[in-house]
Amino acid sequence: MTVSEQTLVPGAGRTAAPPRLGTVVMKFGGTSVGDPERIKRVAGRLVAAREAGARVVGVVSAMGRTTDELIGLAREVASRPDPRELDMLLSTGERISCALVAMAARELGHEAISLTGSQAGIITDSVHTKAKIVEVRATRINAALDRAQIVLVAGFQGMSATRDITTLGRGGSDTTAVALAAALGADACEIYTDVDGVFTADPRVVPDTRKLAAVTYAEMLELAAAGAKVLQLRSVEFARNHGVRLHVRSTFGDEPGTWVIEEDEHVERAAISGVTHTVEEAVYRVQGPTPAVLFPALAGAHVNVDTIIQTSSDVIVFSAPLEDRGTTAGVLDELGASWSERDDLGKVSIVGAGMKSHPGVAARTFTTLRDLRIEPQFISTSPIKIAFYVPHGEVEEAVRALHAAFELGSDTEVRRG
Amino acid sequence: MTVSEQTLVPGAGRTAAPPRLGTVVMKFGGTSVGDPERIKRVAGRLVAAREAGARVVGVVSAMGRTTDELIGLAREVASRPDPRELDMLLSTGERISCALVAMAARELGHEAISLTGSQAGIITDSVHTKAKIVEVRATRINAALDRAQIVLVAGFQGMSATRDITTLGRGGSDTTAVALAAALGADACEIYTDVDGVFTADPRVVPDTRKLAAVTYAEMLELAAAGAKVLQLRSVEFARNHGVRLHVRSTFGDEPGTWVIEEDEHVERAAISGVTHTVEEAVYRVQGPTPAVLFPALAGAHVNVDTIIQTSSDVIVFSAPLEDRGTTAGVLDELGASWSERDDLGKVSIVGAGMKSHPGVAARTFTTLRDLRIEPQFISTSPIKIAFYVPHGEVEEAVRALHAAFELGSDTEVRRG
Repeated sequence: MTVSEQTLVPGAGRTAAPPRLGTVVMKFGGTSVGDPERIKRVAGRLVAAREAGARVVGVVSAMGRTTDELIGLAREVASRPDPRELDMLLSTGERISCALVAMAARELGHEAISLTGSQAGIITDSVHTKAKIVEVRATRINAALDRAQIVLVAGFQGMSATRDITTLGRGGSDTTAVALAAALGADACEIYTDVDGVFTADPRVVPDTRKLAAVTYAEMLELAAAGAKVLQLRSVEFARNHGVRLHVRSTFGDEPGTWVIEEDEHVERAAISGVTHTVEEAVYRVQGPTPAVLFPALAGAHVNVDTIIQTSSDVIVFSAPLEDRGTTAGVLDELGASWSERDDLGKVSIVGAGMKSHPGVAARTFTTLRDLRIEPQFISTSPIKIAFYVPHGEVEEAVRALHAAFELGSDTEVRRG
Repeated sequence: MTVSEQTLVPGAGRTAAPPRLGTVVMKFGGTSVGDPERIKRVAGRLVAAREAGARVVGVVSAMGRTTDELIGLAREVASRPDPRELDMLLSTGERISCALVAMAARELGHEAISLTGSQAGIITDSVHTKAKIVEVRATRINAALDRAQIVLVAGFQGMSATRDITTLGRGGSDTTAVALAAALGADACEIYTDVDGVFTADPRVVPDTRKLAAVTYAEMLELAAAGAKVLQLRSVEFARNHGVRLHVRSTFGDEPGTWVIEEDEHVERAAISGVTHTVEEAVYRVQGPTPAVLFPALAGAHVNVDTIIQTSSDVIVFSAPLEDRGTTAGVLDELGASWSERDDLGKVSIVGAGMKSHPGVAARTFTTLRDLRIEPQFISTSPIKIAFYVPHGEVEEAVRALHAAFELGSDTEVRRG
């Protein structure tokens, strides 16, 4: 079947390929495979799922800081490493870890096989370092599953039509896992990570955060976009579009984590699911080009524009990741724009699918901020989100106050299913 | 064209594909690409060859001790790592270094592209960790060379008919380079290494060794088999069978090294080219199985038997690499042989294509040893070699005395073309 990031038909994957009983895709991040002992533990998890009767596909990221180390090497030999060569280089990290996990699973007495992105049939476009999956040809995976093998797939990578190795960008292993889950009609895509699930706020900032049993795709999208790093934004979009049920949970424990599901599967709705924040965006104020010129140019340069706020007829304000700063500046200069940039602002977002039916969320948000004498800038909203920018120094105070104001803490009533 | 390690037709490669003017394959070992600075230097060499007008193919090994580190990781997760998974793991080392060299060449302003063994069209059998090349489909390399790109190929690896990644065994990058040189009809295959060429003896043992300007394939085969580590045995066989001219030289200097060529290209012949030695073999004494049973069984287990000496009608003595010790023992036990093993013997070999026409080499060898009161054991000869085993402690003394006896030192007359 064709599972494309471009095919935005909600639930299409489910309709086209009814889930086979007992297929599970289990994805493990870099920390989870950070050393030989952890690799063995991951193998143990895969083997346990296989012994419970499931058809098991494991997707693994590169060990620990491998990717950063490889990027460091590239920068030592070239000032601007060629993207195609960077993909050849970076794709090795996941190949190493998936081969090691396969060996460790075999050591436990189970048949296991590792596949590169290309061998796993993950076909992408040819935008090196930020490729998008256009198709998953799962023939080889299915054949191995039919032989009762545990299949390990190198995350984060694929192959373009010209048979070049591509990578999917930071966090791309999540997208690999979801794409495979969709293509295989898996019952669940389990995302194993170093946190226990999705929390009502960043536990480093708010002491009494609570783990959410479930969030909707829409909430997870807003949370991911707002800086909650537990899942890559694209993988959540992909999961929603193909009806893949995600389960975010800890590699190091057995408790259930957080399910990411359709809204209609949710029994009870609270107004707010979480308060999240990020300080990794720059805010641009641009005069000159129209939105119809500006945003296609930024998209063409693969800048992931986040918030867009048109404050007057000729001024556009938008935010974009700090890491895309050089590219963004290049695009703006090329368009002859008059522009300025602020990197001293952080974004705070209040997210909740129940917001639609609970009036007064905006009111409570802004009275809370007023009481703290914090003045929000560049406010942006969606049906399930209120976001605003404040100076870096006020971000954590705002998060803590709003978390308390909406009674999200663990000592308050648990209102989620 | 088909360039197979199995097709043992001398010079076949040359006849089938006349050399294109100016194609050169340059192979760099692990030490040569050991760190970013060295990688840049390798890129500089490739670029210089390209600027001189050549069609340039670079073959690189894994950086420094990468392969050993990866093997170490494998052993931490599995007591007997699966060979297929080991190949998936180990092949990443060369991919890393060839991507980095390609980046560094681009940094110098030249188009460059890296290819995995599979992308380079290196098709092997499916004997994981010791695969043999069965075919080189050089379409993609030729297309890149036609676009004036410098082509980097990951050494040591290929792809089997089942599209699994294979590796060619220790030193396999030499074989990759020779196979590509044959398939491309290259004018030369330059093997860059951390020594200046082929010497009359190991410089660590003999102080006044001399670099040889040229040796024949046959001499190089005996030298490689006898422990001179500058070239992998298989790559020399492959070069001879396909008429590939090898040039062994230093990565760190510009002086010519040692050419490995046909005997008829050699103008002058000295009796002896070199004295070499190894202490990395075990000697087995076997009773029970006949040679017709024993050696096929060892070959089937991929044990590279070196010297074979039949001392009596029912005793077989042979040597094999220390690293194949476990496998060898397994085969012998399986055959129900009664056997013993010695690992305290080293082999000394005197090699020279001129030996055939210079009588008295054997006589001088054994009188030299007698004067030292060294008693050679398990003597074995070929038309261009005399080899014998002595206890480890006597190896270096024997090498030094024979090197002097045959006047091979740098202070003696240089008699080679």
